[in-house]
Amino acid sequence: MPIDLAAEAAGNIIRAPGVRIERIVSKGHTSPESGWYDQDENEWVMVLQGSGTLTFEDGSTAHLSKGDHIQIPAHCKHRVSWTHPNQLTIWLAVFYR
Amino acid sequence: MPIDLAAEAAGNIIRAPGVRIERIVSKGHTSPESGWYDQDENEWVMVLQGSGTLTFEDGSTAHLSKGDHIQIPAHCKHRVSWTHPNQLTIWLAVFYR
Repeated sequence: MPIDLAAEAAGNIIRAPGVRIERIVSKGHTSPESGWYDQDENEWVMVLQGSGTLTFEDGSTAHLSKGDHIQIPAHCKHRVSWTHPNQLTIWLAVFYR
Repeated sequence: MPIDLAAEAAGNIIRAPGVRIERIVSKGHTSPESGWYDQDENEWVMVLQGSGTLTFEDGSTAHLSKGDHIQIPAHCKHRVSWTHPNQLTIWLAVFYR
């Protein structure tokens, strides 16, 4: 079951009662368009390819390159403030309760 | 939080009530030493680096290279029957109920 690196922007890989695994592709854009992600679930995210920066509500940032990963507790407001402009950035995100 | 590619054979990244994320490193060896993995949890596993082959109790196999992933239901007996002999193989495994 290979991963197609040029596929859709976000795809569910696993959706089970307590856990959801998503593959998210971004290129030179930030998200969400305005405001913050404010999620009921904890998130663990790893960069599989490319690089990106997360910004948190307190102003802190985390720059993640390939292989880097970070844990984001539920309701820790965050956004993707930068991704590599010329390269696809592929995130693997695990959401869990 | 970068991943040290030369680190220990298996490390917990996340351990929460319903989900466990592990990074597992293997090189040219199979596991378990004898018998099968027979787990109470579902497992989703992706190869981050290298390549390996899983063999299932029914004799079927799955060869996974970088970026490939597979879902293994709870109690689906399996083993790692081959990993690349000259290269570290790094697995990212998500175990969930």
